[in-house]
Order: sequence, then structure tokens, then C-alpha cells
Amino acid sequence: MGSKQKILVGGVTIGGGAPPVIQSMCNTDTRDVPATVKQINALEEAGCQVVRLAIPDQEAAEAASAIRTQVRLPLVADIHFDYRLALAAVKSGVHKVRINPGNIGDKEKVRAVAECCKANGVPIRVGVNSGSIDRDLREKYGVTPEALCESALRNLAMLDECGFFDTCVSLKMSNVFSTIRAYRLMAARCDRPLHLGVTEAGGVHMGTLRSAAAFGALLCDGIGDTIRVSLTADPVQEIYAARDILKALDLHQSGARIVSCPTCGRTQIDLIPLAEAVEKRLEKLQTRLTVAVMGCVVNGPGEAREADIGIAGGRGEGVIIKKGEVLCRVPETELLPRLVEEIEKMTGETL
Amino acid sequence: MGSKQKILVGGVTIGGGAPPVIQSMCNTDTRDVPATVKQINALEEAGCQVVRLAIPDQEAAEAASAIRTQVRLPLVADIHFDYRLALAAVKSGVHKVRINPGNIGDKEKVRAVAECCKANGVPIRVGVNSGSIDRDLREKYGVTPEALCESALRNLAMLDECGFFDTCVSLKMSNVFSTIRAYRLMAARCDRPLHLGVTEAGGVHMGTLRSAAAFGALLCDGIGDTIRVSLTADPVQEIYAARDILKALDLHQSGARIVSCPTCGRTQIDLIPLAEAVEKRLEKLQTRLTVAVMGCVVNGPGEAREADIGIAGGRGEGVIIKKGEVLCRVPETELLPRLVEEIEKMTGETL
Repeated sequence: MGSKQKILVGGVTIGGGAPPVIQSMCNTDTRDVPATVKQINALEEAGCQVVRLAIPDQEAAEAASAIRTQVRLPLVADIHFDYRLALAAVKSGVHKVRINPGNIGDKEKVRAVAECCKANGVPIRVGVNSGSIDRDLREKYGVTPEALCESALRNLAMLDECGFFDTCVSLKMSNVFSTIRAYRLMAARCDRPLHLGVTEAGGVHMGTLRSAAAFGALLCDGIGDTIRVSLTADPVQEIYAARDILKALDLHQSGARIVSCPTCGRTQIDLIPLAEAVEKRLEKLQTRLTVAVMGCVVNGPGEAREADIGIAGGRGEGVIIKKGEVLCRVPETELLPRLVEEIEKMTGETL
Repeated sequence: MGSKQKILVGGVTIGGGAPPVIQSMCNTDTRDVPATVKQINALEEAGCQVVRLAIPDQEAAEAASAIRTQVRLPLVADIHFDYRLALAAVKSGVHKVRINPGNIGDKEKVRAVAECCKANGVPIRVGVNSGSIDRDLREKYGVTPEALCESALRNLAMLDECGFFDTCVSLKMSNVFSTIRAYRLMAARCDRPLHLGVTEAGGVHMGTLRSAAAFGALLCDGIGDTIRVSLTADPVQEIYAARDILKALDLHQSGARIVSCPTCGRTQIDLIPLAEAVEKRLEKLQTRLTVAVMGCVVNGPGEAREADIGIAGGRGEGVIIKKGEVLCRVPETELLPRLVEEIEKMTGETL
């Protein structure tokens, strides 16, 4: 799962087989320290593990120092064009720098950044996207996965030449299939940790769907070590979306996973409110558990077999199924309380 | 894209390179003709192209005949165990039958169904899922993609032996990665049209994410000819979800595709409400158009280059970009009206 190589961002491991790390980016003015600190803490509360800050000028680079002392999350400095901002951000104690060496000018500037990061144990993300492909590659390939991959490899090579290998890579495009192809190309050509993202993904709903599709395709093949869901929205929404996507892929580390069947003409129980009630009632569960909510006697019992525990509906009544065995038959109104009772017994948690 | 082989369901082509067809299933009692007709019409209005009905008994099979005359959508009869229900449904004029030959008993019964379908030009979907794997395969492989694929091939072979090849296949599991693997295995072993779905996907939000992940991964590789988003919800929600997923994958055939960047510390314009306003304002657009809404001078203009038209923000003002060329610079409040005006000029539509 993921790349064999890894980087360490603050205390967080990205790559080396670690579970996908959830990232976001502040949309506050970094120079506004209290607002940025407040947002970082809200992101952490939601489940964010690494957070990026825009560093558009020297003042922002210096603000990172004050921010760092007031938050727990590792910080990533987002730098464009000006290598001095990278040096200043590292001096401020950021835990990772995102910069494209191809954008910062001559080799001496790239070397200065690489040496500064190396001396401070700060990894670098090369973050290529459709808007930042080198002109010659864009002319040769167009805005394509191939162009992004070549552009990223070229940027990585600039750091490699400086003896700096503590890198990860992203290759974001706005089209889902192109994004998938870009990362597949990259994974085939180098083993650096990969930061997954779809760029300009859109608002909460469509942006989450685009990211779910891209991340699902890539993580299924073991491609990807950290994810960012880019949304035109409050960044806290990005964290909820990232968590939900990992849950949908059964990669999230805790809590109930509800599987429920679509309702159809065979359904003999009021399934929709029941499934919603089960989801709500188990919201706080910490233990990883698959819970089936089935409404039909045709597929229900068979499919609930894969779940740790489940209920399957009949005519106004239902059965509770545990690891494929029918535990008991109860009236419909008793299904939820008996399910919760059984889960509390299994997990030792109080729900 | 998709399988080379195709089936014809009523007037709808599935496979043969046709765009993915959107399906759903009624959750009404099929014997309740008015309720079922009403739901089918609501599904059609939402964008459904093929609809399935549960046929649990003879009365339901006969009701399909009355339903058929009152709706435009092609109908699929969902049959389990009893081959006589398949014969009755075909007699009622349904356009496809979903049945697993392995479930209906001896070879003579399978042959009767195959001959009846052949005589009436009715294709069959073999629909295998985790709950219906043959016992011996489940014991050999467990509930795995391999077991599903073997089970589906065995069911198809039973129809092949009857000289019936007008088939499509589904292999639904509740885990996204397993579902992806099952379909990949199948696509490598046969060229029948594939009906994509994740079973017991969950409620609207999580179920849509699971389907987006699975369909994204599969359609990216040209696997899949028709999709059903299974949700524990009103089936009309399944159609909205299916449309949104196809839109997210840039496979939907019409309307605006909004790309917008995440907001960050570099954003110099009030992007979130602007992107939402653009999306809302272009809801009725019929022409396929990619519209960029960018909030930043770093990536914005570069990334808007891929869009047909776009806006990129500055300090209280912005630019309108058409195919990579800056058309004009306008105050922030003028961005949306000028964008709409330009789109109306490009498309000839009145928005």
C-alpha cells in the first residue's frame, strides 16, 4: 500500500506503507496569526493531520513562526517563485515546503533551498498541476498526464542533483481520468510518496465526488500516501469529505461502517428510516465494525454474512445476525435497541 | 469505451461503445400499478434510462403488462428462483430480464427461459452479488472477487449452452475495492456489456461516494456500460447521484462543468459565493461547456486555460478568459453578468 519510500512531516509519516494522511490548506491570511491558528485548530478537531499555509510574502513566512508555537498540527509552507520565502519559512520552523524548483530560477537558488531543508530535516513536495507545466512540455504534449509527469520528474531531478531526496510529489489535474493517469504514470516511474488531489475540483458536492472517484481508483491500486480534497469551501469541509471518502473505501481507521441494501419491491420493512437511525445511533462508535441493515429476505441474510453484525427485515419483524448466525428474531421496533445492545456487548463501548 | 458487444433494452443500447446508461429500480409494490407508473415517470423525468421492477410473484409479472403501456422507459424484470415468473414477465412485454440461471433449478428450466427470451428479443442480465455466490465457489474462494467472477462465468455458460448470448453481467460487492477487482477480472475474461454497481452501498451520501469511487476506477479503464447507484433512499435520488457521478467524471452529455480552485491565503476575491452563484446561474445550460472560476493570480489564469471560458479574480476585480485569452478586466460585481453574457453569445442559449 502506497510508496515504499517515506517522508516525515513533523510527527506524521507519509509513505512507507502508512495509512493515507489527511491534509488541508488554510484559506486565512497567514499574516493574521489568530485567525490562522483558530482555523488550524478547527481542522485538527475535524481530523486533519497536516495543514498547509500560503506564504505569499516575507511577513507571512515570519508569521508561520508564531503560528507554529500555538498549534499541534505539522505545517507546510506553500511557496511560489521566490526561494527566499522558502528559506524564511524553514527558519520559522515549518515541517514541509511545497515548491516547484522549476519556478524559482537558477540552480544556485534551488541548491540554497535544498541545503536549508536538508539541514533542518524538512521534506519538500514538488506540486505540479495543469497550470504549472513547463512551457516546452506543454507545447510537446499539451496539458496531458504525460506532460505533468515529465514536469514533475524534471522538478524532482533538480532536487536529486542537489543530493536532496526527501521529497514527495503531486500531479493535480481538473479532469478525474487525467488525474488518475498522471499518478499511474508517476507511480510506474518513481517510488516517492504521492500526495493525491484533483485540482479545481469544485464545490462540496461535486468536488467530493471527483476526489472520491480519483482517490478510489488510485488507492485501489496502492497508489497514494496522503490526500487532499480541494473544495471551493471552508477547509473544514475538505476534512469531512476526506474522512468520508476513506470511510467509503473502508480505509478509515475507526467507527461503524454501515452497509445497507437499496430498497426494492421485495422490501418488507421500513428500511430507509431504520438505516438512517442505525447510522445516527452508531455515530460515536470507536471500534471498527461492519454493520449490515438489510430489508429483504432474498439477498439480506446472505449478504449480511460478511458484516460483523447485522439486521435483516421481514414482515414487521426482523432477525439479528452475528457473523452469519441468526441470534434472534424480534419485532421491527425492537431491532435497533437490540442491535445497539449487542454492539455494546461486542465492543465494551457505551453508545 | 465499454464492451464491444452490446444488448438492446427497448430502444436503449447498452455496450458497443455507447455512453453509460443510467438505471434504477422501483421500490414500489409492482402489483400497485398506479404507484409504480408514477415512480417510473418520476425516474424518467430525473434522467433514468432503464428501470427495473421486482417480480416476486405471478401477479407482479402480470402487472408489468399494464405498467408497460403507461410508461416510456424500458422495463427490466427482476426474478429470483422461479423460472415461470421470467416467462410471465416476458409475456407481459418487459424489455430485459435479470435472473441467475444457477438459481432457477434444472437445465430444462434455464432452456425454457432462454428460448422464451430469444423468441421475444429480450436480453438477460446475469446479476451476481456477494449474497448469491454458488456455495462451492464460496467455499473455495471465500466471498471474493474471484468467487464472484467464477460464479458469473458459470451462470453465463449455462445460457451460452442454450445458444443464448444476448447477455450482460453485474458483479456487485459491498466493498469498493473488491467491486473494482471483480469487474476488472470479468472484463479481462469476457466481452459482455457490464452493469456496474456497488451493493448495500448505504444512504445517499456514503452510497454515492462508494459508487463514485468504484465507477470512477472502472470507467477510467473503459470498463462498464450501464450504471446503477444503489442507495437506501428514494430511487429518484439514485438518478441524481448517477448523473452527478457521470458529471464528475466528465462523462455527462450536457450542461456546464464548473471547475473552481480551492480558496487559500492567496485568494483575493470572494470566491465561494461567486462559484456557487455561477453554478446556480448556469444550471439550465444545455451546451457542454467547461467554465473556470479561479480566485488566484498564481494558478488561476494558467489553469483557466483548459476551460472554454473562465473568470480569474484579483483585488476586487477580475478578468474574463476565453480559450486562454483575456477578454476583458471588470469589477468583481460585473464578473458574473459578463460571464453569462459571454456564454449566451457562445452558445446561442438564453440563460
